[in-house]
Amino acid sequence: MKIDRDAPVGVFDSGVGGLTVAREIMRNLPSEKIVYFGDTARVPYGNKSKETILRYSRQIIRFLREQEVKAIVVACNTASAFALDEVRHELDIPILGVIEPGAEVAARITKNKRVGVIGTEGTIGSGIHEKYLKKLDQEITVIGKSCPLFVSLVEEGWLHDPVTVEVASRYLKELQEQEIDTLILGCTHYPLLRSTIGQVMGEKVQLVNPAYETALELGRLLKEKDLVSTGKEQEEFPYRFYVSDLAEKFKSFANSILPYDVEMTQKIDIEKY
Amino acid sequence: MKIDRDAPVGVFDSGVGGLTVAREIMRNLPSEKIVYFGDTARVPYGNKSKETILRYSRQIIRFLREQEVKAIVVACNTASAFALDEVRHELDIPILGVIEPGAEVAARITKNKRVGVIGTEGTIGSGIHEKYLKKLDQEITVIGKSCPLFVSLVEEGWLHDPVTVEVASRYLKELQEQEIDTLILGCTHYPLLRSTIGQVMGEKVQLVNPAYETALELGRLLKEKDLVSTGKEQEEFPYRFYVSDLAEKFKSFANSILPYDVEMTQKIDIEKY
Repeated sequence: MKIDRDAPVGVFDSGVGGLTVAREIMRNLPSEKIVYFGDTARVPYGNKSKETILRYSRQIIRFLREQEVKAIVVACNTASAFALDEVRHELDIPILGVIEPGAEVAARITKNKRVGVIGTEGTIGSGIHEKYLKKLDQEITVIGKSCPLFVSLVEEGWLHDPVTVEVASRYLKELQEQEIDTLILGCTHYPLLRSTIGQVMGEKVQLVNPAYETALELGRLLKEKDLVSTGKEQEEFPYRFYVSDLAEKFKSFANSILPYDVEMTQKIDIEKY
Repeated sequence: MKIDRDAPVGVFDSGVGGLTVAREIMRNLPSEKIVYFGDTARVPYGNKSKETILRYSRQIIRFLREQEVKAIVVACNTASAFALDEVRHELDIPILGVIEPGAEVAARITKNKRVGVIGTEGTIGSGIHEKYLKKLDQEITVIGKSCPLFVSLVEEGWLHDPVTVEVASRYLKELQEQEIDTLILGCTHYPLLRSTIGQVMGEKVQLVNPAYETALELGRLLKEKDLVSTGKEQEEFPYRFYVSDLAEKFKSFANSILPYDVEMTQKIDIEKY
């Protein structure tokens, strides 16, 4: 099969969180077109089972294939943890998740080989970061901590708030005691809490933002597969957004974090796929 | 159609919250059997559209009908707000929600005719409590406030916690300033925060727990329709629990709040209905 290099990249997430990944792709690979899908009818994924997440991911991939994407970014840590390994074998286009790129950078920059990971219950319970980090360096100790309230705090907009600082202090205490020197923000909402998390952890701990690393990895992958956009095919809407519910609410959140004015957001029935 | 009076009552919610309603039915109508469905794969409902909630509710009602229930309790405020009026006309068995019973008590006990309502974004945005309260008494002023973080705080188990007190103080400030004398706990999770909410609002404000009022209303409705259980038909499992995901996690939460040892929780594929 010949893949069209000027086709868009498909990006999906359980909701708005993956927009932090889309944002990094827009910034770092400006000639690439994007079709984004946010599963706002079934959000959140973090407290659901592997089986359910795998079924949801397959439906979304079927939808993105219909949009003729040339590659897929699973911009959701839970879906990357639970579904990526299985769906990779079912596809004839490149697919990447957000966990490997974050793990690779963490393994490279940690000095004391003690790496913390924060994320949803599903992601942390899966132990997926530890699996990747240990593969890269057997000597790394990984300390995971789930932070279930962080997503709600972000969606409430309390990004720089005393309540958020208190919640963060409590969740992160264990990681501080374990003397980590590197912390992976293992949920796509968390980069929006970056300054609060940084303030609590202190300057000695380096924060890894997998959204940024994933955009760079996507760039490398497209180059390797000879799929970098020629940038010649101009489109009126280079970034298209689809959701499974509440398109207007999604659009307003998207406009608050993207360096781009979101004009079109369309609701589709994902359960038909 | 002749309805079997010894058939179970169907109770459904987006997840675990409706267990506060099931608990009140167990306490107040001990001879009634219950089939409970918690939509744990698609929880929460509070931030989804009316159209989506209506579709979900219809699927669950089809499942409960298959279990041959004699009546249905919509133990979820969002589903009661968005779906009850429409599905009532599609059914030949009694169905009731949690909003009307709570509104009736609030209208009866308020002295200054200033009633507060707290709930999810969906419930508060629907204005459904105001609709019912105004129907009962035109002079009542209704002040609604959505409290999106409360559900996450309950599910995290932080029921009596300084963070929860701080979040509650912030959400409830507006209601205090409006000098309400009655407050409806308009989300099934909130009775579990009753003591924190009571502490913040002070003794002068009466809290209405719709879970309790709904159980009493169910008792009246069954009597009126001549459907009270004879209590003769004993069953090994008078209370049966079904979920759309993570049955074990549900069971452990259920066991922490029910006056009864939950033995069987079964996962079903609700999207087939």
